[in-house]
Amino acid sequence: MRTARRRLVIASNRGPVVYGRSGGERTARRGGGGLVTALSGLVASQDVTWVAAAISAEDEEVAGEQEGAIDETDRNGNPFRLRLVRLDRADYDRYYNVFANPLLWFIQHGLWNRPYTPEMSAGTRAAWEAYRRVNEAFAEAIAAECGGADAVLVHDYQLYLVPRMLRAAGMRAPLSHFTHIPWPGPDAWRVLTSEMRSGLLHGLLAADVVGFHTTRSVRAFLATTEEYVGEAAVDHVRPRITLHDAVAHVRAYPISVDPDEFAKLAQHELVTAEEERLVAARPERLVLRVDRTDPSKNVVRGFHAFARFLARHPEWHGRVEMLALLDPSRQEIPDYAEYVGAIHRAAREVNDQFSDPGWTPIDLRVSDNFAQAIAAYKQYDVLLVNAIVDGMNLIAKEAPLVNERAGVLVLSENAGAHEELGAYALSVNPFDVEGTADAIAEALTMPDAERQRRAAEIRAHVREHDVRAWMAGQLADLDSIVEGGAR
Amino acid sequence: MRTARRRLVIASNRGPVVYGRSGGERTARRGGGGLVTALSGLVASQDVTWVAAAISAEDEEVAGEQEGAIDETDRNGNPFRLRLVRLDRADYDRYYNVFANPLLWFIQHGLWNRPYTPEMSAGTRAAWEAYRRVNEAFAEAIAAECGGADAVLVHDYQLYLVPRMLRAAGMRAPLSHFTHIPWPGPDAWRVLTSEMRSGLLHGLLAADVVGFHTTRSVRAFLATTEEYVGEAAVDHVRPRITLHDAVAHVRAYPISVDPDEFAKLAQHELVTAEEERLVAARPERLVLRVDRTDPSKNVVRGFHAFARFLARHPEWHGRVEMLALLDPSRQEIPDYAEYVGAIHRAAREVNDQFSDPGWTPIDLRVSDNFAQAIAAYKQYDVLLVNAIVDGMNLIAKEAPLVNERAGVLVLSENAGAHEELGAYALSVNPFDVEGTADAIAEALTMPDAERQRRAAEIRAHVREHDVRAWMAGQLADLDSIVEGGAR
Repeated sequence: MRTARRRLVIASNRGPVVYGRSGGERTARRGGGGLVTALSGLVASQDVTWVAAAISAEDEEVAGEQEGAIDETDRNGNPFRLRLVRLDRADYDRYYNVFANPLLWFIQHGLWNRPYTPEMSAGTRAAWEAYRRVNEAFAEAIAAECGGADAVLVHDYQLYLVPRMLRAAGMRAPLSHFTHIPWPGPDAWRVLTSEMRSGLLHGLLAADVVGFHTTRSVRAFLATTEEYVGEAAVDHVRPRITLHDAVAHVRAYPISVDPDEFAKLAQHELVTAEEERLVAARPERLVLRVDRTDPSKNVVRGFHAFARFLARHPEWHGRVEMLALLDPSRQEIPDYAEYVGAIHRAAREVNDQFSDPGWTPIDLRVSDNFAQAIAAYKQYDVLLVNAIVDGMNLIAKEAPLVNERAGVLVLSENAGAHEELGAYALSVNPFDVEGTADAIAEALTMPDAERQRRAAEIRAHVREHDVRAWMAGQLADLDSIVEGGAR
Repeated sequence: MRTARRRLVIASNRGPVVYGRSGGERTARRGGGGLVTALSGLVASQDVTWVAAAISAEDEEVAGEQEGAIDETDRNGNPFRLRLVRLDRADYDRYYNVFANPLLWFIQHGLWNRPYTPEMSAGTRAAWEAYRRVNEAFAEAIAAECGGADAVLVHDYQLYLVPRMLRAAGMRAPLSHFTHIPWPGPDAWRVLTSEMRSGLLHGLLAADVVGFHTTRSVRAFLATTEEYVGEAAVDHVRPRITLHDAVAHVRAYPISVDPDEFAKLAQHELVTAEEERLVAARPERLVLRVDRTDPSKNVVRGFHAFARFLARHPEWHGRVEMLALLDPSRQEIPDYAEYVGAIHRAAREVNDQFSDPGWTPIDLRVSDNFAQAIAAYKQYDVLLVNAIVDGMNLIAKEAPLVNERAGVLVLSENAGAHEELGAYALSVNPFDVEGTADAIAEALTMPDAERQRRAAEIRAHVREHDVRAWMAGQLADLDSIVEGGAR
């Protein structure tokens, strides 16, 4: 692996800085989002130009003041260059709130209710055109910034078309695309028109490296390409895909977290204050879930499983609570708003059925309170991560780092984290409410030595496979692929 | 291919005869169901013992009167042996109305609304146990009847476990299993517990031949096995699967119809009477759909597409109607009952929006009237088959055989029939309402010579690849596989 500083261009929909205005002054809010956090290590160690959408009104102001990238610093003071891409507002709305979410997100998490949704309507076609135009605008901005770049790293499902557009424009730098959400098999993609399907796949296949979090996504991407791109040669062993002399290496790089960051967070005064309140009110045993209110997170079945556990284990009544800390998510999308309703209804039903004076089984809190979440990470006895499917699920990695009670991780076999942590967790099939109830019971009665051992193994794994290792693996592969003369 | 009469054992949930009681006398109703019709050619040409569930109360009476198979005749007077399997009523209900439908049916047609359904509950587990017991009962009955059999042919998704049970019992006759519904890729099966998944796959892999209608299902079955049966060796080229020295050949045999039967039906007096009524009331152009009210049939999006077509083509107002002949299906299953509600609502909305005095765009008839359907087959100008996914869809094959107006077939790319007839049809993506509206417009304005040519090609294809060819292909393969010493 090279150790010199590289010149990197990173592209993602959301950038590491969002500008605002307060009291007549321009403000800059730094951080936010798992992807931005994961990539922030690069800013410190490499020469980074970051290309991102101008999202706020002030972002647009900033982008309008100057051609090209501007100088910025991250929250640790490290300098980088920032290029904000100005976009038509109606285009951005269709690209982001129709095509990327919910359409692609629901496809890739298997959430469509196919007897009824989605419909490829005139509106969907308009959203697809907007998605293309936004990807074009990104490609143009990247092309303008990537002279002399050692590599261009394009991120996530908002930007599937960018790699091919860059190659079509003659960009020859090493190029990767990384998808942070699951890639499903061919069936999931049937809801798209063949033009959209083919556009997305050809878009990605122009990259030198197509990255995912899991080997399952890698296999599914190969199968999807085989089904829909007849002219592609798919090598399942290496694994890579050759299309018109271009070779795309398809690889899994499981994303991770920064253990030091969480060690610090755990000691932050906001967190310890929250923790005091939690401890004062905590039951004998605490089952925790921390999620966005996304239908993929499977909150409703989680409550049903807890109810089933309570029905079968009256000895735990009054002694255990489920604390659900849910961050409201994408409420302007009807399916998301409806899912919040279903969450409240399910919690209410469980509490109506089992509550006693002085004991409410489910403590549901729908709000965005990061300090409270970290405090709860420290205090859980059981952490329930039962996502229907999840690209990675970083909560399964970060919460055990700071937990102080040798808490047991109950982990969905469809979370990306399961490929790494499944051996140390209690695995559940997220559809299996009965099995999830069993796992909660098993976790609550697991002998202390066994809990300690499993918790230690998770911490050791995450510390060894941290976010730096995630990025280092990708850069090393890009180097060796390019040195191998792939392009 | 051998031409001598074989001794065959056929097993399917529903048999070719259902007994009843009328005026104190036992009655026998023959025929019914595409599978039974498709297999009935075998009764005439081979020595058949048919093993089927005792479904009616009188079936149980018949089964109780005698050990083993009884002598029966089909509706053409051909003799065969019938073995009715007596089953516990509660088991049968769970096996049929919970596990096979909706669970397996919804999995295999991609119909689950995964944020909410299904849940693997205690009830699902009980249904799985019932499914196992019913399959055991079938396997025992088959084993008792198959002495000296040249082949055992097990049919459909109700009986996935039977092949392995037969082999475990020492049955050594050539053995095939045929699935009449689509087989989806690995993702669809994630909703089942690993025990269920593994049970179904191991059940099937004990057959010498695992048959489907389409090469798409064959590919998906190989991928599913690869994902979930680690010890299986999957050969994608031949294609076949080796598991513990047993080889299962995985093949596509597209089912078909009997053209002579439809030629006769078209002239039946009940049909011509219905046809007179249709002709008297018909508009200038008739768009027809004939379906069960199954969510997989995509009736709602079909109405939306017709509305979109009308919105964009006012020149057709008053001149074209969509006739929807829908057979109510499985109304005891909530999702099915709700889908009928959605169908009525969608039709009402379209009619409210577009009706004129003297013209109602959608003529929705929810009833079981086979003669009316055949009459409509003769009279359509456009036949819309836009299933979300379909094992085969025999309507796409039978209706063109009797159509007298060179009607155009608009065919879902996810219907099994599309692998054979797609070249002669207008293909639609069933989720693509806008594209389906385009296809309806194109079909209505297609030049007559082109309509004639396409209609003739469909008829020629179906006549050449009829239901006899479907069965002959399977028997020839079983012969050659067995002669090749596979077992």
